[in-house]
Amino acid sequence: MNWENILKQSADKAASEIGKGKVADYIPALAEADPNAFGMAVYGVDGTHASIGQSTEPFSIQSISKIFTLSIALSNIGDDLWTRVGREPSGTAFNSVVQLEKEKGIPRNPLINAGALVVTDAIVSHCGDLSASEMICQTVRKSADSERIRIDEDVAASEAKWGDRNRSLAYFMSSFGNLKNPPESVLKAYFHQCALEMTVEELARAGLFLANAGEDPLTGEKMATREQCNRINALMMTCGHYDMSGDFAFRVGLPGKSGVGGGILAIAPGVGSVAVWSPALNAAGNSQAGTVALETFADISGLSVFSSSTPAPQV
Amino acid sequence: MNWENILKQSADKAASEIGKGKVADYIPALAEADPNAFGMAVYGVDGTHASIGQSTEPFSIQSISKIFTLSIALSNIGDDLWTRVGREPSGTAFNSVVQLEKEKGIPRNPLINAGALVVTDAIVSHCGDLSASEMICQTVRKSADSERIRIDEDVAASEAKWGDRNRSLAYFMSSFGNLKNPPESVLKAYFHQCALEMTVEELARAGLFLANAGEDPLTGEKMATREQCNRINALMMTCGHYDMSGDFAFRVGLPGKSGVGGGILAIAPGVGSVAVWSPALNAAGNSQAGTVALETFADISGLSVFSSSTPAPQV
Amino acid sequence: MNWENILKQSADKAASEIGKGKVADYIPALAEADPNAFGMAVYGVDGTHASIGQSTEPFSIQSISKIFTLSIALSNIGDDLWTRVGREPSGTAFNSVVQLEKEKGIPRNPLINAGALVVTDAIVSHCGDLSASEMICQTVRKSADSERIRIDEDVAASEAKWGDRNRSLAYFMSSFGNLKNPPESVLKAYFHQCALEMTVEELARAGLFLANAGEDPLTGEKMATREQCNRINALMMTCGHYDMSGDFAFRVGLPGKSGVGGGILAIAPGVGSVAVWSPALNAAGNSQAGTVALETFADISGLSVFSSSTPAPQV
Amino acid sequence: MNWENILKQSADKAASEIGKGKVADYIPALAEADPNAFGMAVYGVDGTHASIGQSTEPFSIQSISKIFTLSIALSNIGDDLWTRVGREPSGTAFNSVVQLEKEKGIPRNPLINAGALVVTDAIVSHCGDLSASEMICQTVRKSADSERIRIDEDVAASEAKWGDRNRSLAYFMSSFGNLKNPPESVLKAYFHQCALEMTVEELARAGLFLANAGEDPLTGEKMATREQCNRINALMMTCGHYDMSGDFAFRVGLPGKSGVGGGILAIAPGVGSVAVWSPALNAAGNSQAGTVALETFADISGLSVFSSSTPAPQV
Repeated sequence: MNWENILKQSADKAASEIGKGKVADYIPALAEADPNAFGMAVYGVDGTHASIGQSTEPFSIQSISKIFTLSIALSNIGDDLWTRVGREPSGTAFNSVVQLEKEKGIPRNPLINAGALVVTDAIVSHCGDLSASEMICQTVRKSADSERIRIDEDVAASEAKWGDRNRSLAYFMSSFGNLKNPPESVLKAYFHQCALEMTVEELARAGLFLANAGEDPLTGEKMATREQCNRINALMMTCGHYDMSGDFAFRVGLPGKSGVGGGILAIAPGVGSVAVWSPALNAAGNSQAGTVALETFADISGLSVFSSSTPAPQV
Repeated sequence: MNWENILKQSADKAASEIGKGKVADYIPALAEADPNAFGMAVYGVDGTHASIGQSTEPFSIQSISKIFTLSIALSNIGDDLWTRVGREPSGTAFNSVVQLEKEKGIPRNPLINAGALVVTDAIVSHCGDLSASEMICQTVRKSADSERIRIDEDVAASEAKWGDRNRSLAYFMSSFGNLKNPPESVLKAYFHQCALEMTVEELARAGLFLANAGEDPLTGEKMATREQCNRINALMMTCGHYDMSGDFAFRVGLPGKSGVGGGILAIAPGVGSVAVWSPALNAAGNSQAGTVALETFADISGLSVFSSSTPAPQV
Repeated sequence: MNWENILKQSADKAASEIGKGKVADYIPALAEADPNAFGMAVYGVDGTHASIGQSTEPFSIQSISKIFTLSIALSNIGDDLWTRVGREPSGTAFNSVVQLEKEKGIPRNPLINAGALVVTDAIVSHCGDLSASEMICQTVRKSADSERIRIDEDVAASEAKWGDRNRSLAYFMSSFGNLKNPPESVLKAYFHQCALEMTVEELARAGLFLANAGEDPLTGEKMATREQCNRINALMMTCGHYDMSGDFAFRVGLPGKSGVGGGILAIAPGVGSVAVWSPALNAAGNSQAGTVALETFADISGLSVFSSSTPAPQV
Repeated sequence: MNWENILKQSADKAASEIGKGKVADYIPALAEADPNAFGMAVYGVDGTHASIGQSTEPFSIQSISKIFTLSIALSNIGDDLWTRVGREPSGTAFNSVVQLEKEKGIPRNPLINAGALVVTDAIVSHCGDLSASEMICQTVRKSADSERIRIDEDVAASEAKWGDRNRSLAYFMSSFGNLKNPPESVLKAYFHQCALEMTVEELARAGLFLANAGEDPLTGEKMATREQCNRINALMMTCGHYDMSGDFAFRVGLPGKSGVGGGILAIAPGVGSVAVWSPALNAAGNSQAGTVALETFADISGLSVFSSSTPAPQV
C-alpha cells in the first residue's frame, strides 16, 4: 500500500468538510477543541506507516477507549463477560436506559455506555495493585508502544461533574446486581478512561493488534486471542457508531469506533489500522470530516470488507 | 480454494447439530420440512463450485428473498428507497411494531419484515406488465441462471392465511403513508416472495453477484451497482440475522441472511457465495446446523472479514 | 338541583372557549363540523332534565360509543371479557400499538381503540340475527329512549376509508388470537359504532343508567348490573380521556368519556348524567369548550366525586 | 355511619385473606413484618372514629408518604410543581425509567417513585432551617395530631443501602436538570420519608383533611387548598396503586394510596378517611387483606364514588 498517497487523497477529500458540524459541548473540557483541526495516521501490519495533518497533537479519545477496555476485560475474565453484557446492536442511543430496563440490567453490547460500564467494572475487579485507570492507561501505552499517553485529569473531572446520566446507568445496573463494585468506583475509572489523551499516530498504532489476530505485529506482544480479536472487530462493525453503525458499515466498510472528541479508529483486518481526528461532529456525534476521510480511505484502498476488490486468499 | 474439502469439513462439523432445534411451525406448510435435511453449496467468482448433502432439493427461502427484492428495488428507484426505510440495526424482533410507531412508519432497515414490505411496495410500483411476484421470480431466476426456480403456491397461500402480523405492519405503515399501493397488493407479493423455492446450489449461484460488485461473474449480467452491492452486504452483516446479527457477525464474519425455512446465504466479497440449508432452527430462528456449518466454513477458509488471515490486497 | 341555572352558568363560562382549538380532520366527514357549535344537556335520576344551546342537533359521538359497546359486551359475556382486555390506564396514545406488543395482544383497557375493538368483537360474536352495528344502534336507542338515533353511513364509510391504523391494531390482535371474528367484520362494526349520531339530549339520556346502578331510572330497564356499572364508571374516570384522563379527573372529577366529534358524556353516580358538545378540540383531542363547561358544571353543582361538598350518605 | 359495624364486617370479610401473599422483602427491615398482622381505622369529618385489630401498632408507611409530601410541595410552590411532574397515569411500574427517557426527565405523576423524588426535591428547596425529613415528619404529626409519629432510622438506612434503583432515577432526572438539589440530598430525604412509622389510627387521622377540602375538620388547621385537595384525591384515584390503580378504582372506588409496608390510606371525600394495614402483599405489591377490607368497607358503606347509593347533594 502506498499509504502516503492514500492518506493524501483522503485528507484532500475531507478538507471541505473540516469544521462542519459541532464540537461536543456536553462537558466544558471538550467544548474548547478546535473545530478545524484534522489529523490522520495509518499503520500496516508490516510495519509501514504514514500520517498527515495534526497527527501528533493529543486529543480526548473518549468512547474509543471502550475498545481497549473491552480487550482488557476479555483478557481478564474471558467469555464470562458475555453473561453480563450482550453482543448485539442496540437500536437505541448510546446512553439509553430503555433496553436496560426491558432486559433486566444486561446491556445490549459493550460499546454503549451501559455496556462499557460493565466492562470497566470487570477491570476494577481484576486490576490488582493498580487502580483500574492506571491499568487501562498502561495497557493502552503498551498497545501504542508509547509512554507519552496520559489521562487528562481536567477532562476526567469534567466528565465526573457532568456525569449524572452515566451515574444513572451505573446505579440502574447495580440495582440488578450487574456491577460487582461500588458504582462510584466504576464511574471514576470510566470517567478516567474517557479522558485518555492520544494522538492519531498513537491511536492507529494502538489498534494494530486488532488487525493481526490479537498480536502486536511489531513487538510480538499478545494483546488478545484471535477469537477475542474477531469478536472485537465484529462488535466495532455492528455497534461501533451507535445508531449510525449501519451507515458507517456501508460508507466505510471497516470495523470502527468513534468518540465524541472527534476521533475514529478503524481496522482493516490482516492489513492495518487507521485513525483520524477532527473535532466537529455530525448529527449522530461522529466526526464529520473524519468519516469522509475514512470513506475515501476505504474506497481507494479497496479495503472495505464488503467490497469485492480484495483478491481471494490462497488456502 | 479447495471448496470440496472445505464443504466436507463444514458438513462434518455440522453433522452432530443436524436435527437439533425446531422446524418453523408458524405456518403449516413449513412444519412439514424434514428436520434432518442438510445441504450446502458454494460458488467462487472464478466459476469454481462445489456442493454437499441435499444440495439439489428445493426448500422455501423465506426471508432470504429480502436480499433479492432489495436489489431489485434499488435498481428500480435507487437511493429514493432510503427516504422510506432506514439502514440501521433495529435491536428488536423481526416483526416488532414498537420502533415503527416511534419512528412514524419508517422501518429501521429493509431486512426486518416492515422494511421488506416497503421494498416490495416499491417493486409493486415498478413491475410494469408483470405482477410483482413474477418480476421477483424472474430476477431470481436470472441471478441463479436457472429456470427451475418457482414460487410454491401452497406456501404462499399458507403465508396469507397466517399473515395477520404482517398485515398489521402493512396497514400500520399505510396509515403513515409509507405504502404507495394497497396493503393487500403488497402483502400478496410479499407472501409470494417468501414462498420462493430454491436449492442451495441455486441460492449460492444467485448470490454470486453480491461477491462481485454487483455483476454476475459468470454471465456478465449487471444485477446491481457496486455501491448498491456494498450496501446490501453491509446490511446483511449488521441486520441479516435479526436480533442475532451480532452473534452471526462474530461467529461467521460474513454478510449473511437467514430464513425460517432453514436456509442461510452468505457472501465472501471478492471470493464467492455460499448457501446452506437445514430446517431445524435455534431459539433465534436461524438454522442450527447451518450456522455451525458456516462458522466452520469461514474458519477454515479464512474468509471471515474480521479475521486477519486474508493477505493484504495490492494497490 | 336547579339544572337550568347550572347549565346556564356552565355555558356562560364556556362561551369564550367556543371555537378555540381545531375540529377533528382525520376523516373528511368530521372536518365539516361547525367549530362554533355548542350544546349541553343534563338528566337527573329523578327525571328532571334541562338543556341549553344546540341540544337537539345530532353529531358524531365517535369514541363515546365505546361506553355503550362495553356495556353490551359485559351483558353478553360478563367477566370473561377481562381475560381479553385489561382495566388499567395505558399511559400511551389511544391508537398506540407499543403496549399491545409488550402485552401480547391484550389491550390495556376497553377505552383505547385496541380495547374497543376487542369489545366490538365480543358483540359480533353475540349479536345473533342482527348485525353488530344494528345491535349496538338498537341498544343505544333503548338507553336513550329515542328511535331517532341512527348511524351516519357517510361517516362510517369515511372511517373505513381512513381506517388503516385501526386495521393495523385489529390484525395485530388477530395474530395473537385475541379477535374471534375476521378483522374486517369487527372493523366494519367498529367504524359504524363510531358513526353513531346523537344529540346531547339523547346522549345525556342514554347515560342515565350509569348514574343509577345499571337501571334506567325512567323506564326501569336493566341495562347493566350494579357491578358492571361501577366498573364502567371507574374506567371512564381512569381511562376516559386517553392521556388526559388524569387532567379531566382533577378538573371535572366525574367519570367521563370524550369523542373526537366534540362530545363528552359525564356521569354523576346517584345523581344524573350530563352531555356536552362543541367540535373544536384541544391538543389532546377533547372538546375545549365542552371540558370548560363540565368543569364549571362540576364546580357549581358540587358533584365532583373528589370534592367534599357532597353530604355523607345515611346507612 | 355506624363505623364500628362497618369495620367489623370489613375485618371479618378480610380475615380469610390475612397472611395470603408475601411480605415485602426488597429491604431486610421490611421483611421482618408479621404477615398475619391486621389493623383498620376510620375517622369521619364529623369527628366520629373507630378502629379494629392492631390499630395502634406502628408500621412503615412507605409510599403512602408520597401523599403527604405532595401536599407539602403544593403548599410550598403551588402549580409550579406541574412544570416538573405530570398528572397522568403512567401505565408502567412504579420504578420504571422508560417513560422518563421518552419524556426527557419529567415523571408522569407524583405517585411513582421518580415523581415523588421531584416532589421531595421541591421540599428540600423549601424546608428552611429544618431538614426536609424533619419538615415532612412535623407536617405528618400535625396532620395526624400526634407527636408520637417518628421516622425509623433503621428502615431509612436499609432503604439507603438497597436504594440503587431510586438513585438511578434521581441521577437520571438530575441529568435533565429536573432536580434542583444534589441527588444524594434528595434521596436521603426520600429514604427517610419512606421510613415514616405510623399506626392505622394515626394514618386515618392524618388523611382527614383530604376528605374535607384541605382543612382538618377537628383542629381547623388548613393543610391544603380545596383545589390542591381535589388534585391529590384525583391522583390517588388514577395513580395511587401503580399498575393496579384501575383495579382498585373499580373494586373500592375511593381515592387510595398503598405502600409496600402493607398499609393503604383511602379517602371518602366529604365523609371521612380510612386506613388499613396487613403486611402480606398481592402480586401487584398492595396489601391483600387490606384491599379486601377496603372493598367491603366501600361496598357496605355505599361510599364508592362510582356507585349510585350516595344521595344527591342539595345545592
